[in-house]
Amino acid sequence: MAHIDLNNQFPGISGLLAHFPETGKPLSILAETLLRGPHTLTSGERELIAGYVSYKNNCNFCHLSHSAAASAHLKDDFKTTDEVIHDIETANVSDKMKALLHIAGHTQQSGKAVTASDIERAKSAGATDDEIHITVLIAAAFCMYNRYVDGLGTWTPTDRSAFLETGKRLAEVGYMG
Amino acid sequence: MAHIDLNNQFPGISGLLAHFPETGKPLSILAETLLRGPHTLTSGERELIAGYVSYKNNCNFCHLSHSAAASAHLKDDFKTTDEVIHDIETANVSDKMKALLHIAGHTQQSGKAVTASDIERAKSAGATDDEIHITVLIAAAFCMYNRYVDGLGTWTPTDRSAFLETGKRLAEVGYMG
Repeated sequence: MAHIDLNNQFPGISGLLAHFPETGKPLSILAETLLRGPHTLTSGERELIAGYVSYKNNCNFCHLSHSAAASAHLKDDFKTTDEVIHDIETANVSDKMKALLHIAGHTQQSGKAVTASDIERAKSAGATDDEIHITVLIAAAFCMYNRYVDGLGTWTPTDRSAFLETGKRLAEVGYMG
Repeated sequence: MAHIDLNNQFPGISGLLAHFPETGKPLSILAETLLRGPHTLTSGERELIAGYVSYKNNCNFCHLSHSAAASAHLKDDFKTTDEVIHDIETANVSDKMKALLHIAGHTQQSGKAVTASDIERAKSAGATDDEIHITVLIAAAFCMYNRYVDGLGTWTPTDRSAFLETGKRLAEVGYMG
């Protein structure tokens, strides 16, 4: 049960967005912009970053939701998301994505943990300023969403398969529903 | 110099919001809603939470900006903001605000660090569910803004007096300018 009364039974952030529409609306628009707005990073790549950061923040609801969304985009049954949380360096992603995921991991620790050499590695691997920007901002934003979900004690389905429908919906319909 | 080219000389988050309007707009609307939207917590109290969390995240730009905004609302020349970062328990704020600042501090560490007894303390001191909600969300949101500002290596004026005008503007005009 959540720490506060939400008057609904929706899991994770869904119950919060529904019960608090004034803040729910800008939070949903931000997620839609970050993860599904036009960008040179695909939505699958951006959801991978979101799921990875959520894993590092120990937020099971967001980790599973966004890994399921990444998996729906990539059509690979959680293969890439599982590889990334196991070890970025051996995951089957591009060198550019490895460098960006490394930046995301440092952003999760602290903004000041992102170093000039992290940025240099990403630029050497072909990342543009826009791609570095969206990576840092997605990682930062999930440090917010994760704390919002867990700080208010919302509930999370325990079975990974429960997230398959959610992932498909997030990938196909998005965050404004 | 920031890690990426912003084509402007604005400090902290200002240069990012100006250079990336697609993400800048929802980020600004969220800040306006959280800190200046209608609420039973005053804007001064909400800015106090924002400044405190930014201090704990070691984000000098946000700490000084939002402490200056709190100070402008409270008209106390940084007295309360300085007391809060020194020690919540001895600061000259209500028992309810002490309990909410305690929740904000735990949220800054991790969503899962917020305990049932943190919530119980706040409720016993008279905090409503809405007040607990906005506290957790402000604290979570500044874990985003702080990482965004520092993760991209933006610059910060070194002198606290440079933030007085900013604080006054944030308090009087807000985040949509």
